[in-house]
Order: sequence, then C-alpha cells, then structure tokens
Amino acid sequence: MRTSAEYLANLKKMKPNLYIGGGKVGRDDPRIQPGVNVMAVTFDLAQDPEWEDLMTITSRLTGKKINRFTHPPQNAHDLMQKQKMIRLLAQRVGGCIQRCMGYDAIIALSIVTKEMDEKYGTEYNRRFINYLKSYQERDLTAACAQTDMKGDRIKRPHEQADPDAYVHIVEQRDDGIIVRGAKISITMAAYADEIIVLPTRALKEADRDYAVAFALPADWEGIQLVTRPVAVRQRKTLKCPFAEMGVSDSMVIFDNVFVPKERLFMCGEWEFGRRLALLFADSHRHSYSGCKPAVSDILCGAAALVAEANNIERVSHVREKLSEFAGSAELAYAAGIASAIYGDKTSSGTYFPNVIYANVGRRLMGETIFHEFNLLAEIAGGLAVTLPYEDEFTAEQTKAWMDKYIIRNPNLSPEDSHRIWRLVENLTASPMACWYEIAGIHGGGSPVMETIALNLEYDYESRKKIARYLAGMDKELNQSKQLQEAPNLCLEGEEG
Amino acid sequence: MRTSAEYLANLKKMKPNLYIGGGKVGRDDPRIQPGVNVMAVTFDLAQDPEWEDLMTITSRLTGKKINRFTHPPQNAHDLMQKQKMIRLLAQRVGGCIQRCMGYDAIIALSIVTKEMDEKYGTEYNRRFINYLKSYQERDLTAACAQTDMKGDRIKRPHEQADPDAYVHIVEQRDDGIIVRGAKISITMAAYADEIIVLPTRALKEADRDYAVAFALPADWEGIQLVTRPVAVRQRKTLKCPFAEMGVSDSMVIFDNVFVPKERLFMCGEWEFGRRLALLFADSHRHSYSGCKPAVSDILCGAAALVAEANNIERVSHVREKLSEFAGSAELAYAAGIASAIYGDKTSSGTYFPNVIYANVGRRLMGETIFHEFNLLAEIAGGLAVTLPYEDEFTAEQTKAWMDKYIIRNPNLSPEDSHRIWRLVENLTASPMACWYEIAGIHGGGSPVMETIALNLEYDYESRKKIARYLAGMDKELNQSKQLQEAPNLCLEGEEG
Amino acid sequence: MRTSAEYLANLKKMKPNLYIGGGKVGRDDPRIQPGVNVMAVTFDLAQDPEWEDLMTITSRLTGKKINRFTHPPQNAHDLMQKQKMIRLLAQRVGGCIQRCMGYDAIIALSIVTKEMDEKYGTEYNRRFINYLKSYQERDLTAACAQTDMKGDRIKRPHEQADPDAYVHIVEQRDDGIIVRGAKISITMAAYADEIIVLPTRALKEADRDYAVAFALPADWEGIQLVTRPVAVRQRKTLKCPFAEMGVSDSMVIFDNVFVPKERLFMCGEWEFGRRLALLFADSHRHSYSGCKPAVSDILCGAAALVAEANNIERVSHVREKLSEFAGSAELAYAAGIASAIYGDKTSSGTYFPNVIYANVGRRLMGETIFHEFNLLAEIAGGLAVTLPYEDEFTAEQTKAWMDKYIIRNPNLSPEDSHRIWRLVENLTASPMACWYEIAGIHGGGSPVMETIALNLEYDYESRKKIARYLAGMDKELNQSKQLQEAPNLCLEGEEG
Amino acid sequence: MRTSAEYLANLKKMKPNLYIGGGKVGRDDPRIQPGVNVMAVTFDLAQDPEWEDLMTITSRLTGKKINRFTHPPQNAHDLMQKQKMIRLLAQRVGGCIQRCMGYDAIIALSIVTKEMDEKYGTEYNRRFINYLKSYQERDLTAACAQTDMKGDRIKRPHEQADPDAYVHIVEQRDDGIIVRGAKISITMAAYADEIIVLPTRALKEADRDYAVAFALPADWEGIQLVTRPVAVRQRKTLKCPFAEMGVSDSMVIFDNVFVPKERLFMCGEWEFGRRLALLFADSHRHSYSGCKPAVSDILCGAAALVAEANNIERVSHVREKLSEFAGSAELAYAAGIASAIYGDKTSSGTYFPNVIYANVGRRLMGETIFHEFNLLAEIAGGLAVTLPYEDEFTAEQTKAWMDKYIIRNPNLSPEDSHRIWRLVENLTASPMACWYEIAGIHGGGSPVMETIALNLEYDYESRKKIARYLAGMDKELNQSKQLQEAPNLCLEGEEG
Repeated sequence: MRTSAEYLANLKKMKPNLYIGGGKVGRDDPRIQPGVNVMAVTFDLAQDPEWEDLMTITSRLTGKKINRFTHPPQNAHDLMQKQKMIRLLAQRVGGCIQRCMGYDAIIALSIVTKEMDEKYGTEYNRRFINYLKSYQERDLTAACAQTDMKGDRIKRPHEQADPDAYVHIVEQRDDGIIVRGAKISITMAAYADEIIVLPTRALKEADRDYAVAFALPADWEGIQLVTRPVAVRQRKTLKCPFAEMGVSDSMVIFDNVFVPKERLFMCGEWEFGRRLALLFADSHRHSYSGCKPAVSDILCGAAALVAEANNIERVSHVREKLSEFAGSAELAYAAGIASAIYGDKTSSGTYFPNVIYANVGRRLMGETIFHEFNLLAEIAGGLAVTLPYEDEFTAEQTKAWMDKYIIRNPNLSPEDSHRIWRLVENLTASPMACWYEIAGIHGGGSPVMETIALNLEYDYESRKKIARYLAGMDKELNQSKQLQEAPNLCLEGEEG
Repeated sequence: MRTSAEYLANLKKMKPNLYIGGGKVGRDDPRIQPGVNVMAVTFDLAQDPEWEDLMTITSRLTGKKINRFTHPPQNAHDLMQKQKMIRLLAQRVGGCIQRCMGYDAIIALSIVTKEMDEKYGTEYNRRFINYLKSYQERDLTAACAQTDMKGDRIKRPHEQADPDAYVHIVEQRDDGIIVRGAKISITMAAYADEIIVLPTRALKEADRDYAVAFALPADWEGIQLVTRPVAVRQRKTLKCPFAEMGVSDSMVIFDNVFVPKERLFMCGEWEFGRRLALLFADSHRHSYSGCKPAVSDILCGAAALVAEANNIERVSHVREKLSEFAGSAELAYAAGIASAIYGDKTSSGTYFPNVIYANVGRRLMGETIFHEFNLLAEIAGGLAVTLPYEDEFTAEQTKAWMDKYIIRNPNLSPEDSHRIWRLVENLTASPMACWYEIAGIHGGGSPVMETIALNLEYDYESRKKIARYLAGMDKELNQSKQLQEAPNLCLEGEEG
Repeated sequence: MRTSAEYLANLKKMKPNLYIGGGKVGRDDPRIQPGVNVMAVTFDLAQDPEWEDLMTITSRLTGKKINRFTHPPQNAHDLMQKQKMIRLLAQRVGGCIQRCMGYDAIIALSIVTKEMDEKYGTEYNRRFINYLKSYQERDLTAACAQTDMKGDRIKRPHEQADPDAYVHIVEQRDDGIIVRGAKISITMAAYADEIIVLPTRALKEADRDYAVAFALPADWEGIQLVTRPVAVRQRKTLKCPFAEMGVSDSMVIFDNVFVPKERLFMCGEWEFGRRLALLFADSHRHSYSGCKPAVSDILCGAAALVAEANNIERVSHVREKLSEFAGSAELAYAAGIASAIYGDKTSSGTYFPNVIYANVGRRLMGETIFHEFNLLAEIAGGLAVTLPYEDEFTAEQTKAWMDKYIIRNPNLSPEDSHRIWRLVENLTASPMACWYEIAGIHGGGSPVMETIALNLEYDYESRKKIARYLAGMDKELNQSKQLQEAPNLCLEGEEG
Repeated sequence: MRTSAEYLANLKKMKPNLYIGGGKVGRDDPRIQPGVNVMAVTFDLAQDPEWEDLMTITSRLTGKKINRFTHPPQNAHDLMQKQKMIRLLAQRVGGCIQRCMGYDAIIALSIVTKEMDEKYGTEYNRRFINYLKSYQERDLTAACAQTDMKGDRIKRPHEQADPDAYVHIVEQRDDGIIVRGAKISITMAAYADEIIVLPTRALKEADRDYAVAFALPADWEGIQLVTRPVAVRQRKTLKCPFAEMGVSDSMVIFDNVFVPKERLFMCGEWEFGRRLALLFADSHRHSYSGCKPAVSDILCGAAALVAEANNIERVSHVREKLSEFAGSAELAYAAGIASAIYGDKTSSGTYFPNVIYANVGRRLMGETIFHEFNLLAEIAGGLAVTLPYEDEFTAEQTKAWMDKYIIRNPNLSPEDSHRIWRLVENLTASPMACWYEIAGIHGGGSPVMETIALNLEYDYESRKKIARYLAGMDKELNQSKQLQEAPNLCLEGEEG
C-alpha cells in the first residue's frame, strides 16, 4: 500500500494536462490541493493501526494486504464494511470521499467482464484481473468517467448530429483502438492515477461503437482535463479540516486516444451497455448509503452546534428539525444495510448490492438533500450568509467589535463562536454548499433516474396479484417469490 | 398448536363481556367475525406445510413446535423472520394481522421481568416463563392493553383529578392485587384469548401504583369490553377475501379486577415503567416494518390494477406514483432489516431490535400513510367514492347498464372491472380506509412519539463532535463508537 | 325565490327514477335526505334578512330579486361575493354546499352560447337566456353532469369500442335530438331540479356528435339515476347539524333521451368542446376557493376543539399544526380573490375568474387535503377511529363507564366531551371523511388536471425572456405584458 | 428625483466607513459595485417614460412627482402597484431589488409615530413627516437596520450579559441621545444614503432603553459598516446583466453614536416595540409577495431555457416541475393581492396590508425556496456545478473543445449554449445562489416567525365555534365577523 506521500509524489510526476482558468497546469496546482487532501486521507488511515480492520483487507488475487478501496466485495459483510468505511471517512473529510468512484467502476468491471466472457468467449475478465492485480498492488486511485456530453438528450448515440457527443471507437487496430469524445462532471479526475471509462446508457446495435470500456493513466497521450476546482474560501488564520478539503470536476476530453488491448474491457458488446452502466450506477448508489448519511451527520452536528451557539438547543422546533437529520441519515444507511444483506453473488464472485434497496435509498437522499441544507440554514439564521469575512476578525480596526458581538452563548469563547459560524457559512453559503446540494441530487443518478430504475426492477406484478387475490379475481395467492429468504446470519457469539 | 377451529371453539366458550351497539354480546356476534377471520389465518398457515418454516419454530422452553407468534426472538434471524412473516400475512389478510400486539407484549415482558429480577431479586421472570410455557403450549392470542384513558394529557397519573384515568393498583392482597381503570383503542381484545396489561408511560415514584403489568383471560371477572367493530360493507354476491377481513377495537374496563400473583409481572417498580412501555413500543414499531410495507404492497397493487382498468398504466405520472409505493414499502422494510441486524441480545436472552432504526422506519410510515391513500385515490379517480352499491350490479332493472358502463378497459370483463373498483372503494372509501389511515399514524406511536424517542436515543453529541473537529475546535476525532460493528454474517455457501 | 319547503314539495312531485340498493325509489327516500338538507340551507338563508345581501341579488334579466346561485357574475365584486357566500355556507353545512355545480354550469353556458353565436350565427344564447330567466324565476337547482364514463382513457370519444362511453347525439330531429350515454360521479343529481349536461373534454372534428350541451329536468323521460348516498352514521340521541348533512352521487344514464331544441345549447360545435369544458372546470375551480377554505376552517376548528379536550392546545407541535390549516385555507382563499380581481369580462357580459389563479389555488387544495385530515387525526389521537358507538353512551349497562372515562379535560362535561369526539370521528373516520378526501382531490379536476391547465395557460415564454435577458442573450427586456394592470379600485371612502 | 448618476455621485462623497477584507474603504470600492448597480436601476427606470406610471407618484406631502419607493401607500391600489413594481424590478435585476427595505421602514414609521403621538401627545409624527418630506425630495435610499446581535436568544434585551447585544440608549441629552450596539445582516447598508433603525422585538418595561427608532446618514459619526459583499464570479468576456448585480450585507456598529432629536422617532415607548417591529416585518412580508414571485419567474425561465438547451422541454416530469414554479410564484403573488385588497387604513392615513395574507404568503415562500432551487438543479443536471471556468471557453488551447462539446441542442450557438449554462451556474452554484436560498428563508422573517405571527393573529376561536355548532354544542352560529366584507370595487368601465 502506498503512503499519502507516495501518492503525492506519483501525482507530481504526471504530465501536465489540466486546464484551469485559462492555461495548462500540472498536479501541483494549488487549486486542486483540497481534492488531493481528501484523497490523502484514504491512504493515511489505511496506515493507521486503529483503522486497519476497516481500511484494509487481504487480496483474493495476491494474498497481500490491500486498501479496501481496491477490493471487490465478496460477501454481505464486505459490502457493509464498504458502507461503514465510506461513512466514517466522509465524516472526517467533511463529505465526499471521492475514491469510491473508481472503486465502484472496479466492481462493475469485475462482474461484466466475466459475463461477457461467458456469453462470447472473450478474454475481458483475464485482462481485467491482470489490471486489478496491478491496481491493488500499486494501490491506485481512479476516476470513473461515465457521463458523456450527450448532445441532444432524446436521441441515441448513433443518431447525434455530432458523433462525438458520446465517447466512441473511431478506429480498430490490432493492438487496440482509437477513441474520441468527452465525458463531463468527472469528479477527482484531476488527481486520480487512472481514468476508467464506462458507457453511460443502454445501447442499440447501431450504437455498437459506443459500447466501449477501458482504463488509462490520467495523463495518457490525448487525454485533456478541463478542470473546475471547488473549495471554500481559504482560511488565513482560522485553519480547520473542513476548509482544507474540496473537490475538482473535469471535462475529460479524448482527442483520438489510443487504448491498448490489455486495458480494453468492452469493445462493441452493445448488449452489455446497459448492464455495465447500471452495475456502476447501482454500486455507486449503494456507496451513497455510506457517504450521504455522513453529510447528514455533519449537517446535523453543525446544526446542533449552532443551536448551542444560539442557545436554542431545547426549543421544540429545533429539536424536531434535528431529528429530521437522524431520519434521513439512518433511513439511507438502513437501505444500504438491507441492500448488502439481500445482495447477490455474481458469476464473477463479486457480491453485488440489492438494487431495489440501493435505489430507494439513493432516491430518498436525492429528494431530501436540499431540505437538509434548508434545515441547517433555518436553525442557523441569516448570519450564515452575512457573516463578515475572516479578515475583519483579525484586523486591528475591527477585531474588538467582532470579538464582542460574535458571542451569543457566553459559554463559548469569541474564537469558538467564530469557528462555529465560519463552519456554518462554509457549509451553507459557499461553493462547497452548492456542490453538495447539486451532487446530492445528481451524483450516482438523480431521483428521476432511480424512479426509472425502480420502475424497471420492482415487481409490480406480484403486487397486482395480491390485489387480485384480495378482490376475489384470483383464487390463490402464491407469495413464495414475493420476499427473499432472510439470510441465515451467524452472528458471533450467537446460537442460531 | 391449535387449529383455527379450536381457536374458534375456545372463543365461543368465553363468558359474554362485549358491549356493541347497546347490549352485551358474546364472541359469536357476527360483527366481530371479520377480526376473528384475520386471527384464523395465523392458525391456518401454521398448519400449512408451505408456510411451516416461517410460521413455526421449536420452543426453547419446551422443545416443541410452536407458532412463531409465541416465540421471543433469540437472534437477528428470528427478528427478520418475524418481519417477513408479518409482511406476508398482512398481504394475505389485506392489512393488519393483529396478533403481533400480544407477540410484542410477550417480548417486552420477557426482557423486563428479567431486568427487574436482576435489580430487585424479585421472581417476575420465573412467573413469566411459566406463563409463557402455557402461552406457547396452548397457542394463545393476546391483546396488549397499553394506552390508558389518560385524562388530562399534561398531568402525570398521580396528579389526575380522577385517579382511574390510568389503570392502577387499588388494593394489595396476599394472593394478588385489585386493579381499576380503563385502556382504550385496544385492537383485537374482543377476540383474543388473553389481555396483557402494560404501563403506557414513564412514571415517577408518586406514580408507584401505576407501575403494573399482568395478563388475564379476556373474559375474566370484572373485565368489560366496549367494542367498536370496523369492516367494509358486507358483500352479497361479489365475495372476496378483503371483504371478509376486519378489526375491532375495544375500551377495556377494569372494574375492580383481581389479578392473581402468578399472572402479575410488575407491581410498583415505577423505575421500570418507561423501560417496559418503550420495550413494547419499540418492538411494535419493528413489527410495523413488516405490516406497513404490506399495506403499501396492497395499495400499490390496487393502484396498478386500477391503472390497468383505466388503461393509464404507462402514463408518466402514474408510473412515478407507483414507484412511490415501492419507496415507502422498501425503505420501511429496510429499516426493519437494519433494526434486526443491529439489534441487541438482552440479559433475558431475547434479542431486541435496534431502536434508532425501528423509530426512523416507523416515523416514515406514519408520515406517508395518508399520502399513499392519496396516491391510490388520485390514480383511481372519483369513481372510488361514487361507485354505485353492489346491489345495482345485480338488480334486474340496472344490471345491464352497470355491466355496460363499468368497463373502461375492454380486456376486462364486467365482473373483473367491478371487482377492481369495488376493491378500490373498500380500500379508499370505507370505514377500513379510515381505520388504516389513522392506525397508520397512531398504532405503535405517532410520528411525534418517534421524534421524541429519537431525540432521547440518537447520539447528537457524536455529531457535534464531528462538527467541532471539522471546525477546528477539537484537534482529534474519535469515531470508534460512532458506528456499530457490522455483524460477521456467515451467509450460507459463502466464504467469509 | 322558493322557500326550502317549496323546493321539497317540488322534489316530491318528481317521477321516481333513482336506484339505490337494489330498487327504484323516489325523492322521498330517507337515504338522500342528508343531501336535501344541504340544499335546503341555500333556500333558507336567502330568506333570512341577515344573509340577504350575500345570498340574493337583483336579476339583470328580470329586475327581480333572485338567489345568487342563479346569477352569472358581472364583475369582480360578484365573484368575490360568490366565493364568500360559498365559504360561509360551507362552514354551516359542514363542507360541500353542492349548489355551485349548477351555478358554474350556468356561468359556463352564459359565455359559450354567446361565443358560438358570434362565430356561427346560431341562436344558442337566446335559448339560454330564456332558460336562465325561468331558472332564476323558478329558483332552480341543477346538477352539472360533465364527467363521462370515458371507457379507454387514452382514446378519443369517437375511437371508443362502445360509442356510448361518452354521451352523444344518436339522432337529429326537427324538434330536437336524441342522446345516449352515461355520466358518472354526478353530485346532487338525485335531489336537483335539473341536470345540465356539458362535454368533458376537448374534441376533434370526428367527435362532432359528442359536442353536446343541454339542460333537462332530472326526472325527464329516459334519464335514470343510479345513486350512491353518503352520510355519517345516523345519530340516535346526540343530534347535531353535521350529522344531518350529506351528499349523494349518481351515475346519470341517458337511455335514448329526447332533448327539445329550446333546451339544447350546443349541438355539434366540436371546436367549442374544450372551451365549454374548461369554462365549467375553471369556474368550478374558483368555487373551490370558497368551499375548500371552509373545509379547512372546520378541520381547524375541530382540531383546536379536540386539542382543548386533550388539554394540549398550547403544545408547540399542536400550535404549528393548527397554523397549517390557516395557511391552506387562506392561500386558497387568496388565490380566489386574485382570480376575481384579475378576472375578465367576456363578450356575454359574464365576468370570468382568472384561470391561472383559479388553477394554482385549486391545485394547492388538491395537494393538501389528505394532509389536513392527517393533521386532525394526528392531534386527535387513535380515539378518533376507536370511539365506541353512540349506543354505549346511553345504554344502561355502559353509560356510567362512558361518562366517567370520556372526560380528559375536566372543564368539559361528559356530553360535550362525547360531542367533540363524535364530531372528530364523523370528520375523520366515516364515509363522509373518505368522500371529502377524495372529492378534495378530484372535484373540479385533480392536481394533475390543474398542472395540465397551467402548462397550457402559463406564460413560460415570458419567463424564458427574463432568463435570456439576464444571461445576455437578448439585449432588451420587454415586461409590458408580463403582469396585468392592477385594477383601479375605488374603495369606499378612499381617495384613489 | 435623482438620476442614478446623482445617486452615485452622492455615494462617492460619503465618508469611508466600510470594512471589507481587512481594511477601511469608501463607497467606490469595486466589491460593492454589484449592489450599487441594483440600486441604480430604481433611479433609471423612474426616469424612463415607459415605467413612469409604476415607478413614480405625486407626493401627498409636497405635490411633487416622487419615486414610488418613498411613498407610503394610501390605498389598496398603491399596495398593488408596490407589489407589481417590486416584481418587475426584481425580474430585471435578477432578484432582490433591496430598496424596499427602507421603503417598508418608512411605512412602519409613518404609522407608529402617529399612534404614539395619539397615545402620549408626543411629536414623533411631525418629526417623521419633516424627515419624509426631505426623504422624498432628495429621493433617498435607506437600509433598515432591525436585527440586533441578540446575544442569548432566550433572554430579553435587559437580561443580556452584554447590554449592547441589542442597540439601546446609553445617554439622554437635550438635543438627542447616544446609542450603542450592533445590527447584523443589514442588506444594502454599504450603499444606502441613510440607515433607519427599528427595534427587533416585543419589549417589556425593563427594556425601555431598547425602545428606540431613528434615521441617520449611513456615514454618520460613530457608525461603522463591517460589510460582506456577495456576487457571482466576474465575467471577463461573457458580460450580462445577471453578473453585474449583487448585494452586500453589513454588520452595522453603533459605537456611542449621537442621534439628534429631529431624527429620533421612538425613545423609550416600550409598549410600541412589538407594534413597530411587526409593522416593518409585515410590510416587508408583503414586499416579498412582489420579489419572491420574481425569483420564481427567473428560476422558471432559466429552467425552461436549460430544458430547451437539453432538448427535454416536452418531457413529462420537466413539464410538471415547470408548473411548480408557476404555483409558487402565483400563490405568493395572490397572497399579496389579497393582502392589499383586505388591507386597512391606519390612523396615519397609510394603508397597511392584511397581516394574515402577508404571513401565509411569506411562509409559503420561505418553505419552498430551497425546493425551487432543487427543481432548477434537477432539470439542469450536474453540469450546473461542474461547468468549466469562463476562461476555458476563450483560451486558445481549449476554445475549440469547449465550443464543440457545450452544444446539446443544435439550434443554439456555442455562445448561447454557454450563456445558458453560465446563467444556470450563477443561479444555482454561486455565492448568489446561497444568498438567495438563505435570504429566501430568513429575509422578513423565517417560516417559524410567520407561524408565530399567524398563531397570534389568526382567529382560531371562530373556527372552534364552527366546530361547536356542527357538533351541536352551540345552537347558533354567528358568522358575521368571520369574513371581511369584499371591497366594493369600481373597476374601470364596469357597472357595479
């Protein structure tokens, strides 16, 4: 496993292909540092003995200790550990831990490569396993580039005026392929080691060239990252973890990029386009059942803290609002647990979360995220967005006023009062606030997407049969397939 | 185990102490038959080989095969089976299976009697175990009588103008006690074998006489049941399961009732009043994670069926509405699963569901129940509440018109069309509709009660610590107790 | 103007053509009496000097004093009086005043007959004015029969397998036409003097035979009313206004019915089908801004009263819930006011409410109605649906128990306590509850219908222009047509 | 009336007393320019013949033409014109027009000074009228400084540890008073001519020194403005109105400030503390019925525009979402209209909006604001928050890629596509987005404050009487005071 220092050193060696604010820059650009800081935490804690059980595991491929972010889950416990790891890390970095993007791509590829091989006798899974070994060994991070530019949203890929609206194969060669197109909204691409490309939607036969999946180093020839960093206003003296963390999203441009065969995991198998797109999406929706509860934890904690600062912690409507965070966080977390418990072993050996639970959970989160920011803003009051700049709290002319007037609860020092309000401002009235709100809707698919997924997967027919039975239209009610068997849990120290 | 015929025979032997519509009647009164029919299903399916695994289990006390409704769960799997059993049964009887009331009372008493004995050296647990053996052996059903009349809602029991506002001990005797008072809204009391009485709230020392728990036969000397039956309008020719089922609630009056010692499970231990009240409430809230998803299943099925009858099943807003049922049902079910997985072994050996998950789940259901009826009513259209009476569909003068005009989807016969609309009417525009809406709010505690429970139990301090860490107020973040360990699940056929 | 006694006497002279519960009955059937009682109030108060200003007005046609329910509004003040009259009457009868159905039909016909004449040189308006004179003179009540059976919901009238799925012309004669078909969910048809038939939707040329509007006496040859009465359980001793009131809905069957020319107001003018359908719907949506606030008033009052009975009136969450009723009632009422103020004078002289405000108001009510019942049920507690029957409060054996235990607030007598709970039961757990919930969604068109209306009428283009201007895509922003001129109100005693 | 150039010239002459980012600056600081630009629009349009009717009026005091922002409304029409003016201006500046703050302060003072004089024989109204004459003549702008720092939220002003937590009188002198304290979240203070100070809450006798209201030039001796500017990222080449506009909020510190008598409008009259606080708040809540609909208009327009860019304008869920903006905007606007129509003439001659309608309207807006941003973000997709910086669209290395890939709808040029996405980013993922979200909750009082106001003002007793009548507890129902008389509107060209 790498240390965070090694991860950083590797980053700095990469070829500059980032474009931020009008010029090409390298990975040492300070504007991407907040995202790099998030990534570093995933390495640091893996080295920390206290976190070892959660952050690391033994590779089935190599028998070596690896970072859990590189390990396709093999059973329900693995999925629950994944969810728990994500929640705890997300609490610590103030929200999105980012590295699960690549993790979910790995999971999706581990399954679909096997399934394609089973159908077509291809060798994608062998290639992928080789790749995965190296990925584990080198302890890599990857951005998953799924969302295409898409062009006209109601046309299929092959129908677009500009064929590059979706990333596609422009040339087949003996040693690989050439691809062109662009992916958007790709979180962490700017400080990932690798970029894993997957299709974004179901495909028809005519879309064959759009059925393409591969992994490349992020600074590979022809890859360009047009990057938008997001962070809170940099602190001058009032340093704190939240203000050190941030994120960058990139438009990833593939300008006639060569993909060597060994890194190519789907190439024309259009029938598997939807399967692969959904494997990633559903796995990522399960990941949200770890990170989004952490966002609720943070908002809840900040709300309780600012209520303390306002001395309104015992007021009835505040208590009620605080409990809403508990509801959001734990319903989503419960959906993740159920998704793990009722997951399925795939032919590849990878254990996959139940999609119904993954989707009802993710949808709930997408529906409530703005409301949770609303709750915090309501408890905090207008000061959240009108708090004077940090400088006024240190400048000679204004410091005394600031120290005097920032205190509402006399048990809190001026600095702690200031720290609380500054955190609340960072959480609710900063570029990060907008990022969490909008990513909270769209990351992993918006509520509309989960509704579509549910309408595809949910067994409405069996519910109609219940109604038909109760109405006397059917004489019998066969419920045997209605509910999955509860797993036979052997809890430690329990007699079954 | 009893057959339903034996259960019925036993009922009919009971002393008449029901008051319905102005007179005293016995258990053979046809107005309670719909509730009796529900209860019968819990016996019938226990005899059915297909349901044996789910409905029966081996008693830890006697080693005999018993109905699961009499078995305090011993591990997470038991809790999940309980939840699953309730959902499947509830689908079959069109909603509330009722028998879990007594089941949850048994569970609560199994725990609290042990805990009181541990603290006071009393012998409640021995008495209870004896009672439970007989309960299992005789395959009994019990109503749990918890909610007192309460009088002035902001005064404690001992402060009430009328001391009988809460059931209490009026006399201590060598062989037992005399109690007086009344319990309200007691479902299934009219056709239960036993009535189990528990305190309804936290108690102070001055409320000592109100700390009382016991079990008595439902026709015991001095017990009077003022009963309100609820059912749909009886079908004349269009018979169907839904129309056969129903419920009765009773005001249970204890008019100086003698409780013999062996049936007395709490007597003055006021410090355990809240504990016992919550053990029942929380266990019952977990039961809701079984039955309420079934109510959603039924409403969803009826909505899909009537959408078919209206030929609007593919309309976008209908699809969206159908998926909302899926969301409600499965988030609630997931909360129950998580509650089981993260439950706790109590000192009595009974395994108890996690209260956070039980409460966030139950609250969600209480918040969405009216909305779900709204969804069905919206999809069905006004005909749900304006459908002519059944008679018009058979009377010579009108039958031809009814047969002609009831058809909207030509693939459905007049009878099936009629059956669908009649079911929808029964579900949305009948006394049962109101019962399910209001019981959906209040049964097991309304959303306000779950909010209170969450505010008591949820670890807001740990969330504040996250915020303090992120704000730079605390240097370290100790998350070790933040999340429970994921259980080490040994799923069949899996390697860990 | 008629007295209610005269209205009743007229009703009893009508030919029996109601079918209820398996046989043909007359207007003296006690099952429709609750609806008749509602209607009677609209006559009684018109005779009451205190209500004269609101309930009566001078006819523009005859110069005589007429009941306001027969007067097409001529200006904004008339519309506001209509709204106010409906709210006050609805408060008094416990909800739906019903007579506005015919009122809105009259309004719609007054406009569309003029517009058709203007386009086609027909004489519909002359016929209608003649009809209206008699309607005013005889002080008639009318049900508006708009909703057809509809058959397959995604096919147009002329495409239906059964052409009678919508009411249509089957024969043209010199002296009139023959029509066939059925209308459903027709409130008050069973005790109206007249039935006014309007088309239910937009029509294409091929639907020409479905473009038909007319008015006939409710017992006219060939008209059959299959009627479903709705009321609360009849009180035996605890009489009260709420329990006397109710409603009936009918399926109105037109079995080859002859419509004489003078009563025919549209006959084939398919281009006006949508116009007429919407004129009625939008006028009726404006009427809802009178009655629905009254329903909120009643629910709010009952909630406040039962909170008093529970002695929880000062509890924070109860206060908050009570204020939600205020919000619903007054936002809807405000929408009605704005709709009146920004209404339009039509070519007929009839003043028509603004459709945007009528629709946003009606939609809000349709979206909140179930929630308001939820609020009341939540404040009331489970007793709302488990209250023992009235008989138990009078029967010798049980009266003492009931009187003792029904009291929660010692300031209330047993009878008043009982009256409060009985009202709450009637409001939340009775057939009327379901009727108000479902009519609250569908009457005048469900939220989905208002969304469609808004999408047709709302000026999205002007909003896009604002966005284009702000984005710098357009250089100028022309807002002149953006908002209507505020009317130049000459408030009494004010200088402009 | 001033031109915007004159307003600017005056600003620049003011004494520097702003603190932004660590130093003292003057009104020429570019960081407050976006707010200044908003203010300028209120002057420019008053000079524009097209807007004259709306933006100007004849002063009752001087007979001269004045800007409407300086004119206390005298009748319902004036209130409706105020609402309309605010909506149209707000559309034009992209949201908050700001100048209504001072306007509402003027309105509140016009009323309360008269009422105090009536009670105490003071001369506040004379002083105020003099001040107002000059205010109108000089065409001033004012910030209203109401919200105090507040200290411990559950203690009254005189109970605070630091007496300066609320602004208060520290010394009475013959020629005036000395005040100390600070006000927070004071919008536009940094570029207003004047600051008008009002109390923020109800006061007790012991809070007498906190009952103080006055107006001072914003750069008056001892006043310090610690200012936080908010704007979107400055455009380099893609200039547009939205990006030119912004806002600044200030902490306004009164460091032993002298208030001369003639500018003092309340001084110790604690019984009028609540009255004055609510007069401002309720008037401002009515103002929100103008500006918040404009915010919905803008969000709606942007959503429709980006839907066009995504080519999903006809998709069902998008249509439904667009109609939600219509609902929010028009319900709020209707509440404002009803508030005007049912307003009251005060003893001062100022016509005041109805507080029930003002509060139900404002609460609705506070409850829906986050949801509306959610809707826009949902329709826009993740690109809203991941759009590369403007520079990348012009830099030589990246321009071609950007131009190619930004197009989704081929009918839109790259520039227009870019402009749309940039506007959406500005609206949903910028400091302004957070400002509008949070100001949308708290400006004029959050939903909790309106709930409190409603619970104070709403006539629950009359609703209880309706319930008592319907329940048979009262024999009569007196509804005469239930609803206000509809005003006798003399609409132009109408016969009454």
